[in-house]
Amino acid sequence: MADTITISLDAMGGDYGADVVIPGAAIALERRPDARFAIYGNEGTVLPILERYPALKAASTFHHCDIAVAMDAKPSQALRQGRWKSSMWRSLEAVKTGEAHVAVSAGNTGALMAMSKFCLRTMANIERPAIAAIWPTMRGESIVLDVGATIGADAQQLIDFSILGGAMARALFSIERPSVGLLNIGVEEVKGLEEVRTAGRLLRDAGLPSLDYAGFVEGDDLGRGTVDVVVTEGFAGNIALKTAEGTAKQIGEYLRSAMKRTFLAKVGYILAKSAFDRLRDKMDPRKVNGGVFLGLNGIVIKSHGGTDAEGFASAVELAYEMQRNKLLDKISQDLVHYHRGRFAGATEGVK
Amino acid sequence: MADTITISLDAMGGDYGADVVIPGAAIALERRPDARFAIYGNEGTVLPILERYPALKAASTFHHCDIAVAMDAKPSQALRQGRWKSSMWRSLEAVKTGEAHVAVSAGNTGALMAMSKFCLRTMANIERPAIAAIWPTMRGESIVLDVGATIGADAQQLIDFSILGGAMARALFSIERPSVGLLNIGVEEVKGLEEVRTAGRLLRDAGLPSLDYAGFVEGDDLGRGTVDVVVTEGFAGNIALKTAEGTAKQIGEYLRSAMKRTFLAKVGYILAKSAFDRLRDKMDPRKVNGGVFLGLNGIVIKSHGGTDAEGFASAVELAYEMQRNKLLDKISQDLVHYHRGRFAGATEGVK
Repeated sequence: MADTITISLDAMGGDYGADVVIPGAAIALERRPDARFAIYGNEGTVLPILERYPALKAASTFHHCDIAVAMDAKPSQALRQGRWKSSMWRSLEAVKTGEAHVAVSAGNTGALMAMSKFCLRTMANIERPAIAAIWPTMRGESIVLDVGATIGADAQQLIDFSILGGAMARALFSIERPSVGLLNIGVEEVKGLEEVRTAGRLLRDAGLPSLDYAGFVEGDDLGRGTVDVVVTEGFAGNIALKTAEGTAKQIGEYLRSAMKRTFLAKVGYILAKSAFDRLRDKMDPRKVNGGVFLGLNGIVIKSHGGTDAEGFASAVELAYEMQRNKLLDKISQDLVHYHRGRFAGATEGVK
Repeated sequence: MADTITISLDAMGGDYGADVVIPGAAIALERRPDARFAIYGNEGTVLPILERYPALKAASTFHHCDIAVAMDAKPSQALRQGRWKSSMWRSLEAVKTGEAHVAVSAGNTGALMAMSKFCLRTMANIERPAIAAIWPTMRGESIVLDVGATIGADAQQLIDFSILGGAMARALFSIERPSVGLLNIGVEEVKGLEEVRTAGRLLRDAGLPSLDYAGFVEGDDLGRGTVDVVVTEGFAGNIALKTAEGTAKQIGEYLRSAMKRTFLAKVGYILAKSAFDRLRDKMDPRKVNGGVFLGLNGIVIKSHGGTDAEGFASAVELAYEMQRNKLLDKISQDLVHYHRGRFAGATEGVK
């Protein structure tokens, strides 16, 4: 594969399947012309669409799969029915065998995570994987993990997530030593969840070269962009993510209805349209589409199920960037470094 | 006390103490002229300010206290130093002795909750108190609890919070049978935290007359106003609350900077100013100022520490409404009803 980056695509995933995946990949290819694709899906569905994108077709291999994992399939059900043969499984397997560098699917999150764990397995010394989201902030972007892979996390898992998130920040933002905060309620060292306090103490003592531990952060630090990486367990992380999405929608709704109320407001809206467009652009969820599965022997990108081609293209480009910046190598190095230090007694006391 | 409503005030609480508490109470009195106040604080600090508000002075009793609880005092420290004699303690004690119906403090949350628990004690059959926040939504307002009183909650505590929140919704929104949702990740019955799933099953089986259990809700349902009451444990609830506040600030910031970028946008902004004012008004955190401590033998309202007089007035008016609508009686009735049903075997299996 030399320096080419090959991305495997689950063409059947998402609310619209190949109707979004194929046009989305075509958009991404225009922007990253050296990308190559391994496309998995039902030939009757996918090939007629692929025909309409000759450049993409030329840059891809296609692999027929009889089975597509349903968007409402339970993880156990998806594994039972879709293992070895579904488009989702085979797009992951391509990463395992080295045929592709990174996989992208808009399929259902639970099924994709279950299959990813089963197919790719967690990395050495990592107990549980995490899903990392890119979070738009006042300062730019941060990484927030875990946003829903695992409920609850002990201190060691929070430290693992810090290392995973730190490596991703280095790959994505080109920061040498990203700042990492632990999400908590209250910023004082004595406050909040026991696991979070223990993880904070150990991270401080460890003095890792790959990340700058910045202490506790609170919910409002997410939008403020106080740190490059915010670490939390999956329940609170998922609720924070969805609460922020909901609040953004709510304010957009308020704004729209306020701008329609009076004649002057309508005129004002038209004059300030470029500003509103800029705001909409800034808040466009399609731009930061893509949850990154971290902690597995391979990178998997989960696109929003309901996104359009533009949004799917963002997920594909994120996959491309993660591979180009060697995310997996960075994680491996950081883990080796951390565990070497730990072995030397630097962070004794972690259970 | 007949039908008058007496509100006890910790005049030393908050970032600005009596400088905000006294003018705030004066504003509230203008709007609720039949309210009466029992004011606790240092006479040297409070009396000169109170002199400037003769109507408030006439409607109040003043009680000198030597000690004020510091905004950064740890709960244990506040209890040790401030019990029996601080303005915070004595404003709570006034509720206990019946001199006041409800207490308002802008003092530090941890200290106020610790003192409230110690002074007022939890109600019969309630293990842990909760803090309920009023959450502005697309549909109006919802109640969200717990937003930070207790970390973690078992199924029974989540049921207790549902009953407490349901009673508050009846008192505040005049809805006969408010809808109650449990905050979870994913809305399917098989998903999410075990405690939440168990609480959901039991609430469904209990078929309480005081509330309409509506199943699981997710983070984005908060802003949508899907249900009247959202129940969660304090860690996730606090993070959700602060994340929403942070997101609102972030979008406000985006909007402000977008409106300043071009000449046309500036003109548009001026024309649409009434609409922007409306938006600002809708998002004004001072309007929904006041966390309500629920589950204690008395109602305590926690005002934001950094609010101004207008914001403090909102907290006082909330206190007034909670008493006028007999929140405590409603809670007692609902608890009796629930436990009677439980005793009859309706919700067997709760640990």
